Amino acid sequence: MNLSPNLDLPSIRTAVNQALADFIKEGKQYLSEIGPELDPVAREIEKFLLSNGKRLRPIFAITGFLAAGGSLNRLLINACSSLELIHVCALIHDDVMDHSDTRRGAPSIHKIFESIHVQQKLSGSATQFGNAAAILMGDLALVWSAQMLHKSGVHIEQLSKALPFYDEMRVELMAGQYLDIFEQSLASQSIERSLKVARFKSGKYTIERPLHFGSSLVNNSEKLLSAFSAYGIPLGEAFQLRDDLLGVFGDPAKTGKPSGDDLKEGKRTALIAAVMERANPSESKLLDSVIGDPNLSEDDITKIQEIISSTGALSHIESLISKLAEKALNALAFEGFTKIGKDLMTELVQISTNRNI
Amino acid sequence: MNLSPNLDLPSIRTAVNQALADFIKEGKQYLSEIGPELDPVAREIEKFLLSNGKRLRPIFAITGFLAAGGSLNRLLINACSSLELIHVCALIHDDVMDHSDTRRGAPSIHKIFESIHVQQKLSGSATQFGNAAAILMGDLALVWSAQMLHKSGVHIEQLSKALPFYDEMRVELMAGQYLDIFEQSLASQSIERSLKVARFKSGKYTIERPLHFGSSLVNNSEKLLSAFSAYGIPLGEAFQLRDDLLGVFGDPAKTGKPSGDDLKEGKRTALIAAVMERANPSESKLLDSVIGDPNLSEDDITKIQEIISSTGALSHIESLISKLAEKALNALAFEGFTKIGKDLMTELVQISTNRNI
Repeated sequence: MNLSPNLDLPSIRTAVNQALADFIKEGKQYLSEIGPELDPVAREIEKFLLSNGKRLRPIFAITGFLAAGGSLNRLLINACSSLELIHVCALIHDDVMDHSDTRRGAPSIHKIFESIHVQQKLSGSATQFGNAAAILMGDLALVWSAQMLHKSGVHIEQLSKALPFYDEMRVELMAGQYLDIFEQSLASQSIERSLKVARFKSGKYTIERPLHFGSSLVNNSEKLLSAFSAYGIPLGEAFQLRDDLLGVFGDPAKTGKPSGDDLKEGKRTALIAAVMERANPSESKLLDSVIGDPNLSEDDITKIQEIISSTGALSHIESLISKLAEKALNALAFEGFTKIGKDLMTELVQISTNRNI
Repeated sequence: MNLSPNLDLPSIRTAVNQALADFIKEGKQYLSEIGPELDPVAREIEKFLLSNGKRLRPIFAITGFLAAGGSLNRLLINACSSLELIHVCALIHDDVMDHSDTRRGAPSIHKIFESIHVQQKLSGSATQFGNAAAILMGDLALVWSAQMLHKSGVHIEQLSKALPFYDEMRVELMAGQYLDIFEQSLASQSIERSLKVARFKSGKYTIERPLHFGSSLVNNSEKLLSAFSAYGIPLGEAFQLRDDLLGVFGDPAKTGKPSGDDLKEGKRTALIAAVMERANPSESKLLDSVIGDPNLSEDDITKIQEIISSTGALSHIESLISKLAEKALNALAFEGFTKIGKDLMTELVQISTNRNI
């Protein structure tokens, strides 16, 4: 594996994919030795992991490592790639919690195991079997992440500096997920509360903490970590706001989710809070009556999109994204970042805030 | 904390409880700083963790450490106590997967959060909220376990020897849990398959792996690890068989589970496989018609208990337990175990195979 001198995002992503494929191969083998009954478990996690995914968390971790002055090797790629398996856990469990039938354009894990139950004519409830399998597979992905990290080959003294960030990242993810389900169940909406959920559930977990994790593998000085936060926190928020827009305006072919998915789910995003604040009484009435309806028609979705545009909620969120991106870019002035780190971080601002996937 | 010279199981258990209480206090504080919405999450995990529990996995880990020649201190207690939080994850997720409403005589976590949803008049489905909260809290317990271990204060070089066992233990647990739900959904029963499920789900996870984990914190020689396996594997199977008996004959006041709970759940235990093999046609018919019925009457339970006794299935399982306990005790002849280790391991054979809790 030759990662230099042309170290760019596609080559980093390829290296991450390779590390994940290698690790999963071993994991599959281990499960298969316990019993062939586990083959579908290993196969479906592998498919889920390798078929898709932007690898943002590993990429931010590697970027943090490089920006802090680290020199990349295969062991470091292994350690940073382990973060992707946390995300696999989060997505699998998320789909069980939300009763989401699809993920990345394919059936979600609990649906796949529900089908296996039906096809193999197993006894008991297929839905319950599917959910149970998905809960366990999410747990397994979480455990595999730690195993991949512990076994990465990175020197244990070096690893020990990164473990606190690895653990905090996971605690914050679970805390953020709980804030999210709690927020969804409240009667009122608030743009501040939605942004807070986004900060923990997505921002810190996707960007700031992976940067800290990667950086601390080479340098965990307070000053450096703060500089990563100054870049990562606003970028994380911008990332989540873009996600909110894609949940309403995104192209299903690109997002892998049905059109208007967030609207059907009734997700309390900052975007929805912004339109609610701006809507006139008749618009509010319409929004209240259709948001959260799982059978929302294309026509309804278009209507909601129009209200989001006409009230100025869309441009408000777009301008928030721009300001946050600007703030992230300004943080790159920090003199402690390496040149390659700054270049990657600049590119990642573009990708995180303008992405159409 | 003075653990010597009178180092016995009750004093070890007390030290484990103290370590867990200290860790959870910190964890609660951390969550509370993220947001007061998380207070119920922290409070209920704390209650669940501290109100009960035999602490078998930490105790076996500490025993492994002492038997391998380690000298106990607070840091080691922290590291070994972290295993209990894996168990908290397993129990919380287990109850969601089984739709079990009670645990240790109290409402299970998903039921508690279902009630919170109702009491606070939150919107959406209370059942879905309860399940989602419990999935996340199980995840959090799993992450907290790793955090407690990583932060234990044990020297990182020493810890690095134990991490592979820590990870394997968790992979095997999840694999064993999947084997279990798969086994429950098969039409046929098999005593061999049930024993295999028990080996992974319970035996290795409760006894062998914690011993390996503890031992490897001081000595991870192949010879020593094999000696622990020779003791731990049969004892783990005996432990699970006793559990099966308690699931049918246990006193609810002691087990914290409703009477005949395993029968109502239709659990495919080695005990049930043994009675199925021995039952005459009319007994088989009765067993088939009532096992798995959640509304099983006291009268039905008594009838099944009688069949288990009269067919000889009960005495078969009791004699299996005795033989396995004997095998475990014989393994203590290994000259590499310390005196204190042997004493504790002898006592643990009694506790694991004759327990009435």
